[in-house]
Parts: sequence; structure tokens; C-alpha cells
Amino acid sequence: MSPIPSSRIPVAVLGATGSVGQRFAALLADHPWFTVAVLAASERSAGLPYREAVRWVQPTPLPEELGEMRVVACRPEAVGECRLAFSALESAVATETEEAFAAAGIWVVSNASSHRMHPLVPLVVPEVNPDHLDLAARQRFGSGRILTNPNCSTIGLTLALKPLVDAFDVEACHVVTMQGLSGAGLTGVPGMQVPDNLIPYIAGEEEKFENEAAKILGRLGDDGIAPYPLPISAHCNRVPVSDGHTLCVSIRLGRPATPEQVIEAWTAFAGEPQERELPSAPRPAIHYLPQQDAPQPRLHRDLGGGMAISVGRLRPCPLLDYRFVTLSHNTVRGAAGGSILLAELAIARGLMESDRQADR
Amino acid sequence: MSPIPSSRIPVAVLGATGSVGQRFAALLADHPWFTVAVLAASERSAGLPYREAVRWVQPTPLPEELGEMRVVACRPEAVGECRLAFSALESAVATETEEAFAAAGIWVVSNASSHRMHPLVPLVVPEVNPDHLDLAARQRFGSGRILTNPNCSTIGLTLALKPLVDAFDVEACHVVTMQGLSGAGLTGVPGMQVPDNLIPYIAGEEEKFENEAAKILGRLGDDGIAPYPLPISAHCNRVPVSDGHTLCVSIRLGRPATPEQVIEAWTAFAGEPQERELPSAPRPAIHYLPQQDAPQPRLHRDLGGGMAISVGRLRPCPLLDYRFVTLSHNTVRGAAGGSILLAELAIARGLMESDRQADR
Amino acid sequence: MSPIPSSRIPVAVLGATGSVGQRFAALLADHPWFTVAVLAASERSAGLPYREAVRWVQPTPLPEELGEMRVVACRPEAVGECRLAFSALESAVATETEEAFAAAGIWVVSNASSHRMHPLVPLVVPEVNPDHLDLAARQRFGSGRILTNPNCSTIGLTLALKPLVDAFDVEACHVVTMQGLSGAGLTGVPGMQVPDNLIPYIAGEEEKFENEAAKILGRLGDDGIAPYPLPISAHCNRVPVSDGHTLCVSIRLGRPATPEQVIEAWTAFAGEPQERELPSAPRPAIHYLPQQDAPQPRLHRDLGGGMAISVGRLRPCPLLDYRFVTLSHNTVRGAAGGSILLAELAIARGLMESDRQADR
Amino acid sequence: MSPIPSSRIPVAVLGATGSVGQRFAALLADHPWFTVAVLAASERSAGLPYREAVRWVQPTPLPEELGEMRVVACRPEAVGECRLAFSALESAVATETEEAFAAAGIWVVSNASSHRMHPLVPLVVPEVNPDHLDLAARQRFGSGRILTNPNCSTIGLTLALKPLVDAFDVEACHVVTMQGLSGAGLTGVPGMQVPDNLIPYIAGEEEKFENEAAKILGRLGDDGIAPYPLPISAHCNRVPVSDGHTLCVSIRLGRPATPEQVIEAWTAFAGEPQERELPSAPRPAIHYLPQQDAPQPRLHRDLGGGMAISVGRLRPCPLLDYRFVTLSHNTVRGAAGGSILLAELAIARGLMESDRQADR
Repeated sequence: MSPIPSSRIPVAVLGATGSVGQRFAALLADHPWFTVAVLAASERSAGLPYREAVRWVQPTPLPEELGEMRVVACRPEAVGECRLAFSALESAVATETEEAFAAAGIWVVSNASSHRMHPLVPLVVPEVNPDHLDLAARQRFGSGRILTNPNCSTIGLTLALKPLVDAFDVEACHVVTMQGLSGAGLTGVPGMQVPDNLIPYIAGEEEKFENEAAKILGRLGDDGIAPYPLPISAHCNRVPVSDGHTLCVSIRLGRPATPEQVIEAWTAFAGEPQERELPSAPRPAIHYLPQQDAPQPRLHRDLGGGMAISVGRLRPCPLLDYRFVTLSHNTVRGAAGGSILLAELAIARGLMESDRQADR
Repeated sequence: MSPIPSSRIPVAVLGATGSVGQRFAALLADHPWFTVAVLAASERSAGLPYREAVRWVQPTPLPEELGEMRVVACRPEAVGECRLAFSALESAVATETEEAFAAAGIWVVSNASSHRMHPLVPLVVPEVNPDHLDLAARQRFGSGRILTNPNCSTIGLTLALKPLVDAFDVEACHVVTMQGLSGAGLTGVPGMQVPDNLIPYIAGEEEKFENEAAKILGRLGDDGIAPYPLPISAHCNRVPVSDGHTLCVSIRLGRPATPEQVIEAWTAFAGEPQERELPSAPRPAIHYLPQQDAPQPRLHRDLGGGMAISVGRLRPCPLLDYRFVTLSHNTVRGAAGGSILLAELAIARGLMESDRQADR
Repeated sequence: MSPIPSSRIPVAVLGATGSVGQRFAALLADHPWFTVAVLAASERSAGLPYREAVRWVQPTPLPEELGEMRVVACRPEAVGECRLAFSALESAVATETEEAFAAAGIWVVSNASSHRMHPLVPLVVPEVNPDHLDLAARQRFGSGRILTNPNCSTIGLTLALKPLVDAFDVEACHVVTMQGLSGAGLTGVPGMQVPDNLIPYIAGEEEKFENEAAKILGRLGDDGIAPYPLPISAHCNRVPVSDGHTLCVSIRLGRPATPEQVIEAWTAFAGEPQERELPSAPRPAIHYLPQQDAPQPRLHRDLGGGMAISVGRLRPCPLLDYRFVTLSHNTVRGAAGGSILLAELAIARGLMESDRQADR
Repeated sequence: MSPIPSSRIPVAVLGATGSVGQRFAALLADHPWFTVAVLAASERSAGLPYREAVRWVQPTPLPEELGEMRVVACRPEAVGECRLAFSALESAVATETEEAFAAAGIWVVSNASSHRMHPLVPLVVPEVNPDHLDLAARQRFGSGRILTNPNCSTIGLTLALKPLVDAFDVEACHVVTMQGLSGAGLTGVPGMQVPDNLIPYIAGEEEKFENEAAKILGRLGDDGIAPYPLPISAHCNRVPVSDGHTLCVSIRLGRPATPEQVIEAWTAFAGEPQERELPSAPRPAIHYLPQQDAPQPRLHRDLGGGMAISVGRLRPCPLLDYRFVTLSHNTVRGAAGGSILLAELAIARGLMESDRQADR
């Protein structure tokens, strides 16, 4: 069981007007531990009520109580009492901004890619590598810390692979993605390119799979994280789906396994967030769906409130060992929700507390 | 018959990287009278090969010969010998830029809204009000002239109404639009808002219908254009269609007409572009489709190379007199193609010639 | 307050494999008053587990407990103890089948169009004309009764009009619809016609508006229902949206009203379902949305669990008095959910009880 | 150069009302060698004008001259003088019907899957294995012959692989498809499943890849066709695209090749249809597109009139040797157009002639 915070923790959302920032706002509006105290965005938006600053594109209405909140600029001095900030910043500005927040003593849980591969920054999927959080203690940004969330497609993949890595090892992985448009942000794909089309390219995405998955599945030691040796071949595609990343995966296992054993590995899986009963932890984390045409984005992306992933169509692969399909909600589990769960995990592990005490 | 120019006329495209600018490039690449000599865009794009400066979103590939052309800035001194420029500029910059080009002696045929309601600027649908071109002679921008194309939805409506105005008068018009995404430009609607959605609002669009249609259908006199007295009620919607604006129209006629007479008015219609056999003039300009579920964007937007409109489902209206559906291609007939036909008309009428001679 | 049934009432779903039948299954799976005892469909499906008989297309997964239930044929003798049946039958078979069920003493709450205009069958939107239920006592089908739900688009329109009819009278109505694909059922629109397209025709739909709305808004007297004299002009379109019917409406009022008064009429509105606190009654029934680009299907169709309608963009109409946009969920409020609310209302009014007692 | 038939050859289209049958009608309407003499479909449609029998879903209007033609039943005695029939029949009826036509002396060029794997039936992509046509002489269905077209996705794959097989051998292939909805026919995917969704399963499709590709790339010998030993792992997905199958392919080559050599193999490729200048032969057959985000269905499916395929994004594969993306138009090249090209090839090779003479 987790130590439930005795009062709501005030948090800031950095980059609150973008697609992921909006999702943070939607998910935090009802959160039992956190309360949105600050919505921060670019200088251009600062001073405006959030309702006017944002072009709301979420599938649920803008939370009433946030609509009238004034947006502030993304500077540490603008976030008042907040000691915790969720970052949905663009990579271009995230590096500098997040370090400034950490230097000012603020914990930053970030969805930006800037610090993911930094050797002292944990890159964490809470069910997969919660122990990597310990790496944060070695950071020297200041008295704050930077924790990161992986790329939206990597999260789904590593969560689907984790039970198989533990049980059988995974030696090779071929993945072709069909990714939702919300992953591209508000300006990523012009609306007119969407109908009757798909785009077989996402800048930088294929490289992220290989780098990030190896770090997440790696082992934390005295010298930092030793990557898990997993060759990954990725083809990334943007398809006319709003939310939900569907992955066609083929894998080679390190040890033989029957289909029943593979499915059992998934269905029996629970991670530290489930054990600690964190508020955003889905139960189960992984749904294995027996229907022959599942998972589908419209049907299954919202399982577990968008925090669970679904897997289906396990069958032998003529080239590697097994083939399957996995689906995750890219802006909930794959972005804002994943970051929130990560913050919950850090708090439940007492990291922010010990850190505060150490500061004194 | 039109006087065919003895050699290809070099033209500039202003705002060549936007959605409509791209359509100009695609349509002009094979034009028998014109040759693209200059592609002009913002300072940010200047100097880049067009292929790199543009985010190409047309349904046909970027014309090879234009891909390597260097983009120039949108300044009169940058367009060299061109005496004719097609403007696909954003309204925000069009006012000043187009006047600067006209002042420099260049004829500007514009798709921007900036000058449409200017009392000395012709707002022309070539089949509907070709005689309004005479208004241009009264302009005082300089030795060049500014000619304008109406809003993309207004073009389809006025072309469908013109034969009925001539034959029966039209006293009232109710129109609800379902407009394609290309009309919103590259940044108008984020891709993630497109799937499984529609947006029942387009900024400024409903007002444009009322103002522009009255001017187009109006009468040119010594005091300028006397608007046609047509009350229009418009609801404008953005739907998940790439190209094509579909309009549900109800009208009250000034004189009684049978359905057969209304259909005959449409099918018999030909305007000056058809009589002059201009290269971009569709024959016929209006297709009346007898099927009960027509017109549909995917099936009928490309009739006449996208320059013809289609009309269907004529039936009595319980409130006004008749109801029907009309469809036009918003970036061909409703934007770039309409501007090109307008330039052809101006040339065929000898306007640019007489103007050049008058300049001497 | 409603008399809450002391135990769950077993119900049958007729036509359970179609699009609306599936929605009944999804909504009844968690219902506090009802429990699905029988899933009935065509002879072809009879005997199969529901999971195999159905091509599930709902946005939520098939309820586990229903998946293994065996489908039975649509015959009164096949529904066992059920005294209440929800009908999602095709019109072609509904006439005969529903009457057979009523003859066998079963109350049928139907979403089919077959009996809607029957002079002794109530056609009810629970918030609009609950008193029309009294008409059922005059039926002579047998000891059962047939109650009907209007067409999916009519429900949204009449609910939006009801507060205005009460406060100001409505004298004329022009409506253009943009209707979701689920309204067409599983075979209504082939998938390949969906991308980048819309279809400006729905068979029989425009006529249903006029007939059904007049009956619903009419007055029940000794001679049956006197229709409300409301001329309606409707254009109906199918758009690439899964669920949600968006209507662009123009109206003429019988008495002058300011925009504030119109909005007040909507926001203050509550009907008998709200007063009785029926389980499926949304609170409020009507959301007036102040944003300029609302309502949108993806954002607002699920308000009130899909049972509330939303209204926006109230503004003057140059031809009639006011224009606005309204959105309703066509398979929840507009079909299965509306029927369920209707059954709740009939039970809360004691109709089924008194009926049973009268039978003795 | 091909022997151009001295007069138009009358042909029948079997299964003319389905999605592929419609495409045959659209493509044959303007064909220089063929003229549509007979449109055949189910008994239900027989006797109706084609316009009424068909639910037209093509992206171009129904050809005028075919709209009034009366549909006949799919029986050899109903096709009159036609000695050549194109089959777009459902597999369920194709086996028997096509053999009946062959028995009656008619050449059947079929897009159905029924006879593809028959040991005496050529399964031909005209650019890939034209010599397999010789196999037809061994058939014993009667004096007619059955020639077959592969599955829509297999065609694109084998055409992209052929130049690499010839130059370097291909030893393994991993392919993930994103297939257009038209491949599912009119009833394959309900419209309501299309928006904001994809379906990661297509019945039987993955198996077809492996079987058909090995036969097409195989070698014709005295004992029939020796399959090409190519292990293929396929994941097949249906995406919200109307026409166009996009394939993400990874391959292992038999001999080393640089990226330049691979691209050169594609761009230099020409097959027998190109050499014989057959009317439906695209020139080139394969477009290699250098843009980083190509090919895209909306942009590139119509290259070469839908008969050319496009390839892009060649890059190394961390698991096999190379990765690339290929796109083909599934109802043109992948179905009706491919069958028409196959008929042209058979005629140009003199097969139908020699056959007729041999019959005497």
C-alpha cells in the first residue's frame, strides 16, 4: 500500500497548451493526490485564461475549474509553491527549461525527449524498471530532479515485452507501428493530410525505439544503466486515428515457450504500481484479448482508463518466434498518464520526501 | 474564340508554400498559356529549393520541374519579368503585399480576402460576372491591377445560383456547408481533430457568404457595384473531407418555376469562359446529377478537372421554394483554378494588353 | 422519486446483433433496474453464443457476461419469463414481430420505425411528451403494449425544441443534419465509401422528421394525438463520424425572445425523467455550450453518458429568427438509451404494474 | 510491339456489381482493345439496368454507356459471343462458375482466389512471371482457360521483390500491411468501424502472401511450378484508407548489395508488358520516390494510372538487410487492372489465337 499524501500536492503543468499538456490537465483535474496549481506555457499565452490560450482537442471537455486559470510563463519563479512540475514541453525548449526548474529545487517529471538518454536521468515505465528511479539521486542539476517518460510508442512496446524478457529473454524484435495523430501534437500533421491517407514516416521515431527500449530494459549498476542487448527494427507510420498506437511485433525469444506460456506471462503480470495500488495504476496492466481481430484503437485504447495496454493475435512467426499486436493509448499511458504514474511511484517510494529532508 | 498568347506568359505565385499556393503550382505546371517563373513565399523560405520549402499536401505529386526552383521573397523586385502574379497570400499580409505589387505595375489575381470588398476591385466568378472586370480600370494602386476571386464556398453557391437568378430571380437563400479541410490551410485544423469529428464553425465564413454573393451577383454602374438584394442565412461546418465543399441550399424564387425548368436552367448554362473556350473553362460548367445520393465529394469534386460544379437532389422545400445540394472543389474551382480562369478571362478580354499599351 | 423495482427485471433484446441491438446490450449490462435475460436475433444466429453471432462494433468491449449467452430466435415463446422486450429490429420484420410479442402479453419498447405513426402507439421522448404514454392503454394488440422511440435525429431535434415550444412556440424549422454512420446500421454504408467523403442522402429520413416531430410535440386528446403544426424542411447527410448526429437548425418563434431568454429556456429545462430521477435520465438534459466551435461529436456526444444533448452557436438568422447547432448521440439518446429511459418512465408511472393487475 | 487487335474484343465482366467488378467496368469503359459486351452478376440483379443493380463506390462516376446495360446472370449461355470474361466473383461461387465458363470455351481471367493455387492454373503478375502463362495449355477444364491474378497485396509485394530476386536473390521477407478498405469489398467492413480505427486482422490474408508469392516467383518446369523458397512473415491490417495497400517490408538478400544497387534494380526494371507496350502497362512499372515520407496512398496510388507501384524509404534493417515501404493500388494494379493487363499479355503472346486455331 502506498502512503497516501495527507493533502493534495500542488503541481504545475509546463507546456500546458499543447496536445500532451492538455491531456495532463484533463487527467490531473480529478486526481486524488495532485491539484493543478499552475498552468505554464509560452510567453505568448501568459496572462490569458487557459480557455482562451488553448486550442482544446481532447475527447472530453476542458475541465471547468481550469478554464479560468491564468496561464503563466514557463519560468521557475512563476510556479509559486509547486515543488512538482509535469513537463509537456517541446524538445527544443525542454532541455534548458527543465534544468532551470531542477536547479530551482523542483522535481520535473517530463514527457519531453531532451533528457531521456542523459546518463543520470531515469527513463522509467513504472511497471518495467521502477528501480531506475534510484539513479536520480546522482543528478547534479540542483536540488530538484528530472525524471523522464519514454517515447509514446516505446512505452507500449516495453510494457508488452517486459513479462517476456523476465520469463524467456527477448533476443530480437521487429516492430511496425500505426500511430495516432495526437502523438504528432497540434501542428504535426495538417488536417487535410488525414482523410484517406497515411504517412509512412515519423521523424526520429525509429531511432528512439532502439535507444530507449535498451535503456529501459537495462540494468542499473554503479556505472549507470547497462543497456539490454536487444536489436530492434522499427518502421513507424502515422495513420488516421486520433489516439492509440497499434504495433505489429515479431520477436525471437531466448528460451523456448509455448503460446500458452507467453499468454500466461502477460496475464499474470503485475508491477510495482499494481502492488503499491497507485491511483493511476491499471489492474491489470496488460489485457490479452482472445478475439481474432483485436486490439482495435476505438475499442480498446481506453481499457484501464487508457493506462492498460492490450495484446492480441499471438501466433508463430515464420522468421522469428512469435508475432503479436499490441495497442496503447499514446497520450494517456504513452505520455501524460505515464508521467503521472511515474510521479506517484516516486512519491510512494518516498523519494521526494527523502529529498526534501536531505535538502534541509 | 480567345486570342491565344503567342508565347507562354511567365507568372509568379505569391504564397507558394501554403495549401492554395501548392494548388496554383500543380495547376500551372501544365498550363498552355502560363509558365511558372517565380515561386514566392515568406522570408523564412526564401533561398530554399521549393521541394524543401514546401510541405506538399496535394493529391498529386509535386511537379518535378518546380521542385528544384529556388523560392524568393514576396517582393515586387524579386519577381523579375513577371507582369502577372497569382496571390495565395494569407489575408494578414495580402493587403500590403498585393498593393505593392500593383504599384510596381504587376497584375495581381488574388485568392486572398483582403481586397474582395474594396469598391474598385472586381470580385469575379468568370461565368457569373465577367463584366465586373471593367471596374479594374478605375483602380489607383499604380499601373498594375488587383483582381479577386471570392471565398471558396461563395464561388460554388453563386455559380449554382446564377442561372436561377437570370431566369427566375432568387429572393432568399439558406445554406448549410460541409467544407473540406484544405480550405483551412495547412495549420487550420490539427490532424488529431479530424478523425470521427466535425467542427460546426469556420471563423468569418458565414459573413463572407452574405457580403460576397451580393457583390458578385450585383450590377456594375457608374457608382460601382450595386449589390444584389439577397438575404442569405449560412451555417458553416468543417467536415473530415480533404477537398470539396458540399452545400445544402434552400431558395425562394422571384418567379414560379417547375423543377424541370430549374434543372434546364442549370444544364443549359454557359458563361463567357465557355463561349471564349478558355483553357480552364469546364464544359459544362454545371452538372446536374440525377442519382438520389449525389453529389458526393469523392465521386464528383473532380468533374471538369475540378472546375465544374455539380448539383443534385432538387426537390421542393416546405419553407422556401426549392432545396438542392451543390458541390465544388474548393482549392481548384474555389481557389487556384478559379483565379487562373479569371486571369485567362482578363487576357482574353484584352485587358492586360490595353493596359500595357496605355502604360506606354 | 421513482419506485425502485425491488429486484432486477429480466428483459429481452430483440435484434441483438445489429448496431442498435449491440448498444442495448452495452447499456443494459450495468443497468440498476434491468438484467438481460434473453438476446434474440435472426434464425441464422439462434443457438450461437452471442460473441460469435455478433460483429461487435461498439466503442467499448462486448460485456463479458453476455458473450457466452446463447442467442435465441425472435419469437415470444423463446423469451421465457421476460415481460419486457427492447426491440432493435429492422423495420421489415418489426411490424409483425412486435405485434406478436404484444399479443403474447409482452411490453415492447421499440426503436423500429414500424409502429411510430400508428394512432394508438405512443411515440415518446421522455422529457418531451411523457403524458403520451397514456395512449398505450387504448391499444388492442393483446395484453402487451408497444411503445416507440422516435428516429435518431428527431429525438435530438424535439428535445432541443421542446423548451422553446413551451416558452415561445416554434412556427417553422429548417434543419440540415450531419449524421453518424452508426445510424445506418452494419450494412448501411460500405466502409470504402467513408474516407474522404460524405453522402447527401438518407432514405426516408427527411420525411420522418416532419411526421414524427409533429406527433411528439402534439397534444393527446380523446381522439388521439393532434399534431403540432410545425413545418419542417430537412436535408439529411451522412458524414464520416461513427456516433453523433449534428444538426444545423434555423427556427421562427411564435413570440419574440432575446438570445438570453432562449438560452435560459434550454438551461433551465428539466423533464419528468429528471424529476423522477430515473436511472438513465441525464442531469441536465440539455447543455448549452458557450464556445464558438461547439458542439463537436468527438467532444460532446458522451455528455450525460450519451443521454444529454448539447446546443451551441445560438445567433440570429437572416431568414428566420434564430440559428443554432445541436448534437445528440444517435445510438444512446437517439436509440437504445432513449428506449431504456422510456421503459424506466413507463415503470415509474406504474403502467406496467397497473397493466399486470388489470390482466388478472 | 504487340499485335493490336484489329477490332475491339467483346468481353464479359462476372461479378460486375461488387467493388472489383465496378473497377473492371470503370477501367474497361475506355479500353483500346476491349469493349464491355456483358455485365453479369447474381440472379437477384439479373434484368436490372446496371445503374440500378449496382451500389457504385468508385472514385469516378459510373460510365454513362454502361449504366443502361441490362445485367445478366453469371452463366456461360448468357454471355453471347464473348470468348473472354473477367471474373470478379466471390470465392464462394468462383470455383464452379469459372470452370463452367472454361468448359464452355471461354477464357476466364480471374481475380478470385479459387483457382490461384491450382497446379495447372497460371498465377501471374505480368511483369514478374509472364512465362507461367504457358502452363494454361495443360489445363483440362474444356476449350477455355483460367488465368489468375494474385491477391491484391501479393501483387505489390512480388512486383517490388522481382528486381531484387533477379539481381540479388531474396532469402527472407517480413511484411506488415496497411490495406485499403476497397479490398474488403462492399460488405467487408461496416462504415461505422472506419472512423478513428483500424483492424489488425484480415481473414486468410497472411496465408495468401506466403503461398502465392512462392508460386509467382517460382520456376515453371515439366512438373509444373517449383515454388521460390521464400519464408514470409506477414501481419495484415485494415486501415481507414479507401484505395491503396501500403507495405512495410524488411528483406534479407542472398548476395550483398549497396542501397544504390537496390534502387538501381528498381528504377531500371522493365518487364514484358513494358517491352510489348501493352495498353495497360505502366512506364515505369516501379517508381522509387526519394522523399522521406513517401509513398502515401493519397499522393501516389494513382501513379501510372494506378498500374505502377511506388517504393520509398530504403534503409538498412537491424535484423534483416534492408527495410522499405511500397504502395500499390489494390483495385487497379492489385485487382481489375492487373487482370486486364494479364489478358492483354495473353493476347499479345498469341495464346488466345493459337488456342482458337487448335480448337478447330
